[in-house]
Amino acid sequence: MEQPCSAVIIGVGPERGLGATLAKHFAAKGLHVFIAGRSEEKLQTVADSIMASGGQATSVVADATREYDIDHLFDIVRYHDSDLRIAAYNVDSNIPAPILETEMETFTHLWQQNCLGAFLFAKQAIELMRARQQGTLFFTGASASLRAKPPFTAFASAKAALRSLAQGLAREFSPEGIHVVHAVIDGVIDGDRAAQQFPALVKARGKEGLLQLEAIAETYWAIHNQHPSTWTHELDLRPFKEPF
Amino acid sequence: MEQPCSAVIIGVGPERGLGATLAKHFAAKGLHVFIAGRSEEKLQTVADSIMASGGQATSVVADATREYDIDHLFDIVRYHDSDLRIAAYNVDSNIPAPILETEMETFTHLWQQNCLGAFLFAKQAIELMRARQQGTLFFTGASASLRAKPPFTAFASAKAALRSLAQGLAREFSPEGIHVVHAVIDGVIDGDRAAQQFPALVKARGKEGLLQLEAIAETYWAIHNQHPSTWTHELDLRPFKEPF
Amino acid sequence: MEQPCSAVIIGVGPERGLGATLAKHFAAKGLHVFIAGRSEEKLQTVADSIMASGGQATSVVADATREYDIDHLFDIVRYHDSDLRIAAYNVDSNIPAPILETEMETFTHLWQQNCLGAFLFAKQAIELMRARQQGTLFFTGASASLRAKPPFTAFASAKAALRSLAQGLAREFSPEGIHVVHAVIDGVIDGDRAAQQFPALVKARGKEGLLQLEAIAETYWAIHNQHPSTWTHELDLRPFKEPF
Amino acid sequence: MEQPCSAVIIGVGPERGLGATLAKHFAAKGLHVFIAGRSEEKLQTVADSIMASGGQATSVVADATREYDIDHLFDIVRYHDSDLRIAAYNVDSNIPAPILETEMETFTHLWQQNCLGAFLFAKQAIELMRARQQGTLFFTGASASLRAKPPFTAFASAKAALRSLAQGLAREFSPEGIHVVHAVIDGVIDGDRAAQQFPALVKARGKEGLLQLEAIAETYWAIHNQHPSTWTHELDLRPFKEPF
Repeated sequence: MEQPCSAVIIGVGPERGLGATLAKHFAAKGLHVFIAGRSEEKLQTVADSIMASGGQATSVVADATREYDIDHLFDIVRYHDSDLRIAAYNVDSNIPAPILETEMETFTHLWQQNCLGAFLFAKQAIELMRARQQGTLFFTGASASLRAKPPFTAFASAKAALRSLAQGLAREFSPEGIHVVHAVIDGVIDGDRAAQQFPALVKARGKEGLLQLEAIAETYWAIHNQHPSTWTHELDLRPFKEPF
Repeated sequence: MEQPCSAVIIGVGPERGLGATLAKHFAAKGLHVFIAGRSEEKLQTVADSIMASGGQATSVVADATREYDIDHLFDIVRYHDSDLRIAAYNVDSNIPAPILETEMETFTHLWQQNCLGAFLFAKQAIELMRARQQGTLFFTGASASLRAKPPFTAFASAKAALRSLAQGLAREFSPEGIHVVHAVIDGVIDGDRAAQQFPALVKARGKEGLLQLEAIAETYWAIHNQHPSTWTHELDLRPFKEPF
Repeated sequence: MEQPCSAVIIGVGPERGLGATLAKHFAAKGLHVFIAGRSEEKLQTVADSIMASGGQATSVVADATREYDIDHLFDIVRYHDSDLRIAAYNVDSNIPAPILETEMETFTHLWQQNCLGAFLFAKQAIELMRARQQGTLFFTGASASLRAKPPFTAFASAKAALRSLAQGLAREFSPEGIHVVHAVIDGVIDGDRAAQQFPALVKARGKEGLLQLEAIAETYWAIHNQHPSTWTHELDLRPFKEPF
Repeated sequence: MEQPCSAVIIGVGPERGLGATLAKHFAAKGLHVFIAGRSEEKLQTVADSIMASGGQATSVVADATREYDIDHLFDIVRYHDSDLRIAAYNVDSNIPAPILETEMETFTHLWQQNCLGAFLFAKQAIELMRARQQGTLFFTGASASLRAKPPFTAFASAKAALRSLAQGLAREFSPEGIHVVHAVIDGVIDGDRAAQQFPALVKARGKEGLLQLEAIAETYWAIHNQHPSTWTHELDLRPFKEPF
């Protein structure tokens, strides 16, 4: 019997969110998806939805910034003994504020969420992928990684740290067959988070002015399927109306 | 009767080259391809091959650096009254040399081939695409656009000029529905040109160490099909073994 | 009586080090220098040397990554009621390692040293400088901030985070008269640290191949003296022989 | 008798312009300045002013984009047999326009002025400087070299080409003792050109919002005097109020 293939996605929250959408997309392509996030309830909703569509999903409650949680998540992936094809670090945390009003805890928290967790997650994913010399490792980044603009300085610093980490990983592990991808999201994603946080902006922009969840997932899938002779390490994703 | 769709590609040379491969790929997807290059013979070979596979191709002899030739090429595109979906500027010219041994003519020629032609080509393609508020404009760039290294300084300068042009076009025309893409080719493409110019390197690298033509075409096609809410303006393409 | 002017430098270690050299240089220009670092003994040596030359120096033992220490350092600066003209964050920590052999503690430590401490230091310095709408804030960065190369990935990620922080600070506080500078050190500094860590390399390069301490201090001083109409936010510093 | 030292500056126009200011500054430091530009009258005014202050100046009418003119300029420099310490390419040409309204001639002209001339000038300057393994080569660049924004796309493309050229030259000739500098001017220079072209903006910004000519010259001089162990290749220059 052929070994099943799998994907692991961390940063899975609301159903209309990027983590959940990537999970559904990869499940629909036949991968067993391991989904991780902080809310058991949200994970269950996503897992149920995937299984209702005939896919396979395993949910694991995990805080991306805790080494123990990340290790536990990958223990479960290992236990299923599947062929890990995709690992997506999709945690994204942003708290805009003038620097003088930013507490040390907030500054640290943003880095832990956006970068430290990615480091912990990558180490485990790479250990698994190396054995078979294949696999794609996605990092959901932001245009702030390229340009720090107040009041997003703390976020930008954390995303710049993530981008640099991803670049170093690509240089270190591409030759071993691991495809490391940094996706520069430039704009607002049309999902539950934006609907809650900036309802007015969501209405004003309309569907064409907001990154569509499924469209991002399709691009991730296309990049995953690139031939090893022709890999993309970094690409931007932006609504056509978005000034940049 | 529905209007046929088309693509125009300039920089079509040998059959195992990127221009020819893009043309075949787009033709196989159902687009009427207008192919342009300096060698009538090479164009004819490519056009014959496309038509033999059931595709539609029109070849136009053109020097990308001559305004008259570019205008003529687009006159032919216009005459066919098809819906122009893709325009790919695929001209690439490189003459490595120490700067003190680089003549003014060479320096100018490299800029004309890599940048001025792209400007002329883009103006015509945009005029056509604007009318229908859609279309993808590809520029085949190089990693030299990001980093000038001797003895490739003149080439790098020309490719940096191209990259900047592409970025300005993206900012100006994305909001009008035109998808402008700058592909950063980082490595050697496995085609007739490399086979002739650096046979030893081609042998040493093997298929995995050289960008595969069809793999590039597949990525171009995936990027062309992105939803307007989620466009990529720039992406790198690199063999997994390539140091960067 | 005119109020005395001062500079605060953190990351002051061995006498032949950048922190100590900046302190001596600024003291020789007439500023009262507050020097901070982890070793009381090293600080005392530097302070003694400055005072022996007729300068004014106050040493404060501080760990740059502890908020309490940074607050304490600036309490002392405030107590002296001088006009703070320069604040230099000169902490630099590097532990090269393959990513899979890098512990979470090491990854975190590098970020704390290279970025978190800079955030804490900058907040305090800016609070002081804002009152008089002037002052220069230096961050000693590294070329790794621009390019992550194994085995320096963790260091690069931390320095990229620092660079982004500095950029955000420049955008937020330049209009208030605070000059924020990110110096991209590209190469090995000719000091006690390099002499200990890589004696062979130091010998091989010779003086011309290593950044000279006094030469860096001179450039910092020139940048500090730029007219507000013509400020540099970022500049690289590199031995003429250094490949880049 | 000691050999006199000299500087050559091209792009010298009105008295209150950057070319003229650099010339005066270098002359005041004791260098014989060779000043080149298209207007004999303007050159004469600048030369007279320098000589009236006790400096030495030789003016040469030259169009920077003509190889013959550049060769002629350096023949004159060579004839004086001085020790060429500084060569500054200060030609700057900008014609903002939407791309579809930009003629091929304009696009080409901008590149010739901003980049081709720099190539011709650099070749001659490097030939002279190499002999003595020293000298500083300045290129006056623009922030557009880093970011193409309509309606400055053609200008940006030309300045990106210049920036890349400068980078390649730095990599090729730094090891031979030639200091290659790319100054990224980000903002409007307070001189005759701005006064004529955008009088309202000049009034609105005031002295603090416009780059002051003498302040730029001081920074150029400081960079020229850097020790070879600690060279800057690129730096930005920006009014403290300028958003970036």
